[in-house]
Amino acid sequence: MTYFTFTEQHLRNFTESVFIKMGCPEKDAVLAADVLLKSDLRGIDSHGVARLSGYVRLWEKQRINATPNVTIVHETPTTATVDGDGALGLVAAPFAMKVAIEKARIYGSGWVAVKNSNHFGIAGYHALMAVEEDMVGISMTNASPLVAPTYANERLLGTNPMCYAFPAAKYPPLIVDMATSAAANGKLEIAQRANLPIPEGWAQDKNGVGTTDPNALKSGGSLLPLGSDKDHGSHKGYGLSAVVDILSAVLSGANYGPWVPPFVSFLEPSADPVGAGIGHFFGAMRIDGFRPADEFKQHMDNWIERFKNAKTIDPDKKVIIPGEPEFAAEIERKKNGIPLIDAVVYDLNELALNLGIAKLH
Amino acid sequence: MTYFTFTEQHLRNFTESVFIKMGCPEKDAVLAADVLLKSDLRGIDSHGVARLSGYVRLWEKQRINATPNVTIVHETPTTATVDGDGALGLVAAPFAMKVAIEKARIYGSGWVAVKNSNHFGIAGYHALMAVEEDMVGISMTNASPLVAPTYANERLLGTNPMCYAFPAAKYPPLIVDMATSAAANGKLEIAQRANLPIPEGWAQDKNGVGTTDPNALKSGGSLLPLGSDKDHGSHKGYGLSAVVDILSAVLSGANYGPWVPPFVSFLEPSADPVGAGIGHFFGAMRIDGFRPADEFKQHMDNWIERFKNAKTIDPDKKVIIPGEPEFAAEIERKKNGIPLIDAVVYDLNELALNLGIAKLH
Repeated sequence: MTYFTFTEQHLRNFTESVFIKMGCPEKDAVLAADVLLKSDLRGIDSHGVARLSGYVRLWEKQRINATPNVTIVHETPTTATVDGDGALGLVAAPFAMKVAIEKARIYGSGWVAVKNSNHFGIAGYHALMAVEEDMVGISMTNASPLVAPTYANERLLGTNPMCYAFPAAKYPPLIVDMATSAAANGKLEIAQRANLPIPEGWAQDKNGVGTTDPNALKSGGSLLPLGSDKDHGSHKGYGLSAVVDILSAVLSGANYGPWVPPFVSFLEPSADPVGAGIGHFFGAMRIDGFRPADEFKQHMDNWIERFKNAKTIDPDKKVIIPGEPEFAAEIERKKNGIPLIDAVVYDLNELALNLGIAKLH
Repeated sequence: MTYFTFTEQHLRNFTESVFIKMGCPEKDAVLAADVLLKSDLRGIDSHGVARLSGYVRLWEKQRINATPNVTIVHETPTTATVDGDGALGLVAAPFAMKVAIEKARIYGSGWVAVKNSNHFGIAGYHALMAVEEDMVGISMTNASPLVAPTYANERLLGTNPMCYAFPAAKYPPLIVDMATSAAANGKLEIAQRANLPIPEGWAQDKNGVGTTDPNALKSGGSLLPLGSDKDHGSHKGYGLSAVVDILSAVLSGANYGPWVPPFVSFLEPSADPVGAGIGHFFGAMRIDGFRPADEFKQHMDNWIERFKNAKTIDPDKKVIIPGEPEFAAEIERKKNGIPLIDAVVYDLNELALNLGIAKLH
């Protein structure tokens, strides 16, 4: 595999110009590019500019609205439902998180469900918005059905990620940002490119039999929930995914379960939808609604240090604090640039050609 | 194994009389018994009256306060921290959930962290209190350290359960109530009694090597997080457990991580605590803070029906709706009584003898 490395600024300019070309207002283009770049900076290559052409294809099919009117359609002092009006999730999600933060500022907490939206990038971006305000940040989203619940031979749930972020004092925020499936689809794609088998427990084939074939999804198989099988708690991964689906979509009025529209443009959304678009859910809670923020952060530092210094099985493998590798990547990539694999670079250059903008490289 | 079956009322009277004998005010005794009985009724035998003598032993060691002054020590309109004053978690938790529900009634949502508490029974009891008010109910608690984070050879986290409950219309509430470890300690205890090996992926031995020995915990081993190993997402189970620990204890001022006091009376709490007692976290959100409750419940019914009727691998194993087997058990046991294994009956009879109350049987 060949990598090309780009500065953050170069990728950012390119990404903004793509969104501008789609017809997004400039501030939306800047925001959407910021969400994608954050993913690339943090080393989550599957959710950054690698998806840019996917968003454009959905826009070409008129499944993404570049000039949406994102509005609050229902609210109480601390809850709200936002209608994304078919927006990029990269735009609707930060809008909703700001509403949650504003409510939390006044009442201690804020909770916002979003319908009629699209893929929102990394969950962590939105949760971290709250952390900057000394709040706990929570974000989740449902997604195209790829995962079979325990005992099912059918894809009924997405990899439905949930994210919780907490500020610390001298350490970076502790952030748990995880798909509720055993493995993310991106990991299967890596195995496909390398032509390597995947571990048992990630996927089942079209007959519901566990498989190590990295192409299982393409031939009618399904991903498995976190826990992999019933003996190891796959009903828990299924349960968590259900929680994300219900909070994101049954609460907001979006599509849920097998009705969630596919991210890929070559698959059509359900002809018989149960809601609007895909759904997200966001929360913000003021730390000082529970105890002084400084006190909390001191204890977070203590928590982090105790876990970092845990006795380990292998002296070369320390216990990892959730979110720490991503913060380390962000520092490194801000300095040394963001590497993209050749396939992504070619894809972006082709996109530039089609849109009539300057190539990436 | 021999079972003895008791009516709900008989077990309830016995349990109340134990709490009264501990010196609990009558309304606390009634409430605490209700929490335990709910667990037995729902078929979660590990968390019901089987634990009664454990609570009494902690009380004898003055680690449970039978006459606590449970109070709100910090609050905003929608958040609060409750000091349990060393109460039974069975008493402090419903108190806190009521505070959350009351705040939700006024402001749309309510969130309460609890410190200085003890084991709270099943998480589901508390979450379901909110469901009865047409709210989403959330409850979690940290617990005695038994679980090693990914790469660690040390018990730093409890089985830290999280619970989310949602009302439906014609179906019982959908309730996800799960330990964040691969398997609950109760499952190891069942294997110990039957002298059977446990599946790989549940526990590691004192050297951090995966084991099938059901006695692994007793000989210095640890439980593993949901996901079992890094390849299958144990870092996600570790992350979820961390979220529960932080919301329950770092936010409230309780002990966290390895400092959480042990449930068993023969192990002493840390001489160097970082907070007070164990911690819980509760949330309540009004459904109609997002969309009309009837609309939500219709869609929950649709969600449930779609998943119940999913295409399955084995025609004899249907997809299970989270919480459904427990509701079925509740109906069955209310009618036919609650079976207790002989060891639990002997233990309760011995408890009765020590406390000078009528034997169970």
